[in-house]
Amino acid sequence: MSTTETHTTTFSARLDLQWTASIRPGLLHAHPDDLPSLLGPRDWSSRRLPIIDEHVHAIYGEQIRALLARYGIDHPDPLVLPGGESAKTADTVERIHRYMETHGVPRFAEPLLVWGGGVAHDVAGYAAATYRRGVPYITFATTLVSAIDAMFALKVAINSQYKNRVGSYHPPATAYADPAFFSTLDRGQILDGTGEILKIAIALDGGLFPVLEQHGPRAVAEHFQGRDPATLAILHRSVSAMGEELSNNPFEHDPQRASYAGHGISPGMEPEVSHGVAVALDLLVTTMIAWRRGAVATPYRDRIVRLAHALGLPLWHPVLERPQVLFDALIDTARHRGGRQRIPAPVHEPGRVRYLDGIDLAELHRALNDLHHAASHDRARRTQWTSTTGE
Amino acid sequence: MSTTETHTTTFSARLDLQWTASIRPGLLHAHPDDLPSLLGPRDWSSRRLPIIDEHVHAIYGEQIRALLARYGIDHPDPLVLPGGESAKTADTVERIHRYMETHGVPRFAEPLLVWGGGVAHDVAGYAAATYRRGVPYITFATTLVSAIDAMFALKVAINSQYKNRVGSYHPPATAYADPAFFSTLDRGQILDGTGEILKIAIALDGGLFPVLEQHGPRAVAEHFQGRDPATLAILHRSVSAMGEELSNNPFEHDPQRASYAGHGISPGMEPEVSHGVAVALDLLVTTMIAWRRGAVATPYRDRIVRLAHALGLPLWHPVLERPQVLFDALIDTARHRGGRQRIPAPVHEPGRVRYLDGIDLAELHRALNDLHHAASHDRARRTQWTSTTGE
Repeated sequence: MSTTETHTTTFSARLDLQWTASIRPGLLHAHPDDLPSLLGPRDWSSRRLPIIDEHVHAIYGEQIRALLARYGIDHPDPLVLPGGESAKTADTVERIHRYMETHGVPRFAEPLLVWGGGVAHDVAGYAAATYRRGVPYITFATTLVSAIDAMFALKVAINSQYKNRVGSYHPPATAYADPAFFSTLDRGQILDGTGEILKIAIALDGGLFPVLEQHGPRAVAEHFQGRDPATLAILHRSVSAMGEELSNNPFEHDPQRASYAGHGISPGMEPEVSHGVAVALDLLVTTMIAWRRGAVATPYRDRIVRLAHALGLPLWHPVLERPQVLFDALIDTARHRGGRQRIPAPVHEPGRVRYLDGIDLAELHRALNDLHHAASHDRARRTQWTSTTGE
Repeated sequence: MSTTETHTTTFSARLDLQWTASIRPGLLHAHPDDLPSLLGPRDWSSRRLPIIDEHVHAIYGEQIRALLARYGIDHPDPLVLPGGESAKTADTVERIHRYMETHGVPRFAEPLLVWGGGVAHDVAGYAAATYRRGVPYITFATTLVSAIDAMFALKVAINSQYKNRVGSYHPPATAYADPAFFSTLDRGQILDGTGEILKIAIALDGGLFPVLEQHGPRAVAEHFQGRDPATLAILHRSVSAMGEELSNNPFEHDPQRASYAGHGISPGMEPEVSHGVAVALDLLVTTMIAWRRGAVATPYRDRIVRLAHALGLPLWHPVLERPQVLFDALIDTARHRGGRQRIPAPVHEPGRVRYLDGIDLAELHRALNDLHHAASHDRARRTQWTSTTGE
C-alpha cells in the first residue's frame, strides 16, 4: 500500500472531573437557608428523580420526602430499589432507565438523588453513567461501607456472570453521608464498613491504625454514632485517604493500586461473605503470605490479626476451606491487572504496601493454614488474641 | 449541624485519551513486515477476539482469517454480529459480553478486533466500554459512513426505547478504513456516508464544499474506489475535520457543537430513513429555517440543495410529512443539550454554523413546506436543480 494514499488523523480527548464527598451529621434535617446546594444547582430545573433503597425507604422515606418538600423539589414517586448484591443486575438498570425515560430526564440539570448503600450507588450510578452517555447523580450514603468508599467512587458496576463484570467510570456530582443512618444498620453492615476501614489503615493511612486500635472497638460498638473527635477522625481520615489514593490513579491505568488491598481473593468469598468482611479476611490471608515471605515481621502480623479481632471482624470463615475457588478469583484478578497479580500486601508498618506476584495454589494453601491456626488459637483462648510466637 | 463535624473531601480525576484513525487502502493485504502494529501490541498476548458484522463476514471472512493467520494471531471462532440498526440492543451487548467471558478476556492486552460499519462500532464499542469498565478495541470500518465518523468516535451506544439512549464514551485504540470495502456496499450505504460528508462540508470544512461540488458526484458513482487525489481528499479532509471538531469538545460538555448539524430532527426520521440520509434531509430543513431567518442568502441555500441533489441524496421523503414526530425529536434533542435546541445551521458560507434556538412547530412546518417546494421544483425540472428565485 502506498504511504501517500494512507492518511492518519490523531485524536485526543481530555476529561477533567471534580466532585466532593462530605460526612455531614444532621443531613436529613438540612434546610435550604443553611445548605442551599444540597440537591444540586436549580437554575435550569428544580425537578429531581429520587431513587431509594427499599430498606432506606421503609425507615427514612417520610423524612426524605420532607427534605425534598423543604427544598421545593418537584419530583415523581421515588423509584424504590431492591436491596442486596443480587439487585445489581441489568434488569434493575433497565428499570431505572425506564423511570428516567418516562419522566424525560435531560442530559444535564436534573441529577438523580440516590439514597442507599454501595449497591444503590453501583446500580443507579451505572444507570446514570449509561443513560444519554451520562447524566449527573448525587449520592446519599446510608451505610458505613458506602460512606467511606462507594459513595464517592468513580467506579459503578453491575454483576453479570461475575461480580462487577459490567461497569463504567462515572462519579457522583456530590456525595453525602450522615452517620445517623448507621444507627439502624445491623451489626453485619457495620462490620462490612469496618473491614474497608481496616484496609485503609493497613494500606493507605498508617496514622489511622493506632486510632483504630485505641478507639475502633468502641466506635464499632456505638455504630459510629459518637460525635467525639476519635469517631469522627476514623470516618474523616478514611474518606481523605481514599480521596488521595483515588486521585492518583482514577481510571486504574496503573494496575498497582494500594486500595486494591483485600480485593484480590475476596471476590471468591462473595456472596457467602459480605463484601467488607471478605476484604478483611483477604487482608488477613495476604498478611500471612507477606509474613511467610519475610515482608511482615511477626509483631506487625499479630497487630493486624489482633486489631481485626478487636474490631469484631471474623478471623475465619468456612469459605476459606475452598482454596481452589479463592485461587480462581486470584487468576481473574490478575486478568484485570495486566496479567500479573500485583497483590498489595502489608510491609514493615501500617500505611505501606508491597505488591506481591507469583502466588500459587500451594502458597495460598499455606497462608490459609496459617490463618486457620491463628484463628483457632484465638478461639481456644477466647480472650484477646496474642501471637503464637509469644510476642 | 456543626461545621466542625462536617468534613468535605474534594476528588479529582483526569483522563487523557489519544487514538488514531487511518484511511488505508490495501488493508486486507497488510503484512506484519510492513505494518507490525496493525493488530495492536503483542508483548503480553497475541490472542485476539474477532467480532465481525454478518455481511462483512460473508464477503470478507476468509480474507480476515488469512490476515489474522499472517499476523500469527491466536483466536477463537469470530463472533458474527447481525447487521442493521435493530442489532444495537442490550441482548447483542450481552452476547458479546458472554463471548468475552467465555474466553477470559483480560482488562488490557487483547483488543477486540471489530469489523463492520457504524452499528458494529456502536454495539461492540459499547460492549467493550462496559466489560471490566473498559477493554480496548480496534475498529476496521467497512462502510463509508463509519470510515468518516463512527470508526473513530468516542461515542458508543445501543438503542433502548430511543435511538442511542444508552451509551458511553470509549474510543477505539485505533481505527482503520479501507475504501476497497466500499466496492461491495449498496448505493444506499454510499449515500449514507455521503450525507455525513455533506454535513462536514457545510458545518466544519468549508474548503471541502467546492471539492464536493466538482468531484463528489463522480466519487459517489465510483463508490470512492478511485485513488485520485480528489477522491482521497474527500475522505481525508472528512476525517481530519471530524478529528479537529471532536478534540475540541470530546465529552460534549459544551452542548454547542458544529458536528451536531443534521442531527436535531433526524432521529425522528429513523429508522424509516437511514442515518446519513436522515442527516442530509435534516440539513436541508435546517437550511430552509436559516434562510427564512435571513442567516443564509438564497444563492448559498441553492448551492446546498443543488449539491445534495448532485450527490444523489433525496431532497424529500414521506417521513417529512409528519412534522409532529420531527418536532418531538427536536424536543428530545433539546433535553440532551441543556434545555435549549442549539441547532447548528448554515450561515453565510460553507464551513460555518450559527446555533438556532426557539424553533417551534409552525416554523418547522414552514421549513418543510419550503423544502417540499424546492424538491417538487426539482422533480418537475428533472434536470439540475436551480433556485426558485432564479439565481
